[in-house]
Amino acid sequence: MRTVVALGGNALTPGGEATIADQRERIAETADELRDLHEAGHDLVVTHGNGPQVGALLRQQEESDAPERPLDVLVAETQAQIGYLVQQALDERIDRRVASVVTQVEVDPDDSAFDEPSKPVGPYLSAEQASQRAFETAEVTTSEGETARRRVVPSPEPARVVEGERIDSLVADGAPVVCAGGGGVPVAVEAGDITGVEAVVDKDCTTRLVAERVDADVLVMATDVPCVYADFGTPEQTPIEEATAPELRERLAAGEFGEGSMEPKVRACLAFLDAGGERAVVAGADAVAAAVAGDAGTQIRPG
Amino acid sequence: MRTVVALGGNALTPGGEATIADQRERIAETADELRDLHEAGHDLVVTHGNGPQVGALLRQQEESDAPERPLDVLVAETQAQIGYLVQQALDERIDRRVASVVTQVEVDPDDSAFDEPSKPVGPYLSAEQASQRAFETAEVTTSEGETARRRVVPSPEPARVVEGERIDSLVADGAPVVCAGGGGVPVAVEAGDITGVEAVVDKDCTTRLVAERVDADVLVMATDVPCVYADFGTPEQTPIEEATAPELRERLAAGEFGEGSMEPKVRACLAFLDAGGERAVVAGADAVAAAVAGDAGTQIRPG
Repeated sequence: MRTVVALGGNALTPGGEATIADQRERIAETADELRDLHEAGHDLVVTHGNGPQVGALLRQQEESDAPERPLDVLVAETQAQIGYLVQQALDERIDRRVASVVTQVEVDPDDSAFDEPSKPVGPYLSAEQASQRAFETAEVTTSEGETARRRVVPSPEPARVVEGERIDSLVADGAPVVCAGGGGVPVAVEAGDITGVEAVVDKDCTTRLVAERVDADVLVMATDVPCVYADFGTPEQTPIEEATAPELRERLAAGEFGEGSMEPKVRACLAFLDAGGERAVVAGADAVAAAVAGDAGTQIRPG
Repeated sequence: MRTVVALGGNALTPGGEATIADQRERIAETADELRDLHEAGHDLVVTHGNGPQVGALLRQQEESDAPERPLDVLVAETQAQIGYLVQQALDERIDRRVASVVTQVEVDPDDSAFDEPSKPVGPYLSAEQASQRAFETAEVTTSEGETARRRVVPSPEPARVVEGERIDSLVADGAPVVCAGGGGVPVAVEAGDITGVEAVVDKDCTTRLVAERVDADVLVMATDVPCVYADFGTPEQTPIEEATAPELRERLAAGEFGEGSMEPKVRACLAFLDAGGERAVVAGADAVAAAVAGDAGTQIRPG
């Protein structure tokens, strides 16, 4: 049984700009879940987000006069930063054969996302700071309800996992692989040249591509909430334990899921099932093993 | 033919705190050499240093109030930072199957190096700054001849490449592998726990371990000078084109090589030959392919 697990923020950090010690603690809990899956016979491919981590690197760059690294390089760095912590936690619990692979993901340079940078990254900036930056910014509201500006970058669709074949051959070898962190490093491929681009790719989209590439039986989205909810954020909010793809597609069209949070996860699950996947699961980070066993989370089948 | 190439500073950056663009340019030249080796039938494992890069990350931490990441995590980050750039350059020149692997290296927590931290890392500090730091510092002389302090960390011997088996299986697959950057992330393994330690491992030592692990035919040290010199730094300095291990061992004992620069490279070459390696080569970064063909650098044989 080949299983791809996407670790969202909650599976990796207690939130905010956490210390590495605090991140290790959170990752240990997640790794316990992954060990249980491994012991139940799952060959694991683990992907992960990198929002707070890439944010911290961008903030450090803002505060330092060391040569600035472009966003593609920073995303690669977070892959090893988080990959190392996850790999070490799995080494301790499973075996010493876990590998983290630096992963690039091909995007289309003509993707319309490049015309309209929309994904906020990095620290909050004052209007004055923003006007001095070479990058595009947009107005945002801080968690304290204040108005600020933040850098915005395009979020194009991922088309292909460049290292897909190597990830496939590593998981075929029977040990967990950590890959595609932060949605992968976005690159444009033109006439044989591969160029990193200043963008971020949605982690859930890329995870779905990885799942298809390694021919996964199950795709698991480990997230901040225990399952998908119908009518999320309304008084009628109810947990969905089981759903077919058509049922979920209908609710998606009706706008029942949180945009930017549950919505991309549900989309990725549906795309995985459309491409021939047997089962997709959305679960809380602390109940991944139970959810894969069918005892927690939302179970989604092609229908 | 299986060949391990260690890329020193000069193969990666034009020196100092270089921009990523400048590093890409330098890496492109090195990648041309590696492409020639690949075309000549070599299965490549590529390792690399990380001195200036980890220095820049440490400096950024000094200048920012974001939560500090420990040294093991920073070393991991530089593995992906540099690994990504090398991987991309090789993707363009060889095939799209290159993989960079986050690599840990086991060290002995009782290594005497831990009693005497000696390896300077990170930015220059004033005596006052140094006194406010939680880490150990030592007096150093800056490139301008001034007195300053720098953080010093232990540099223990590497005992085992934790991801050795995965690196071996990836190279058996016929595509280049980038690994063991910055000498690997040093970890202590005790009673099943793997813990990152605040230390740096010599890149040349770890490269030799990698070469043994993948049963390499040739070990190549790509460096800042075209070859090993007899009587280095004296008026009698002469290039060594060929040498047997016993000859080189004698010169090493006589202190003919630059401590901290050529000396660890020669030691690593000798250890590789002692462990059954057929040939070790020390070459300029711009002449790696010619050196492996026997037309440049220093050729070292068991004798």
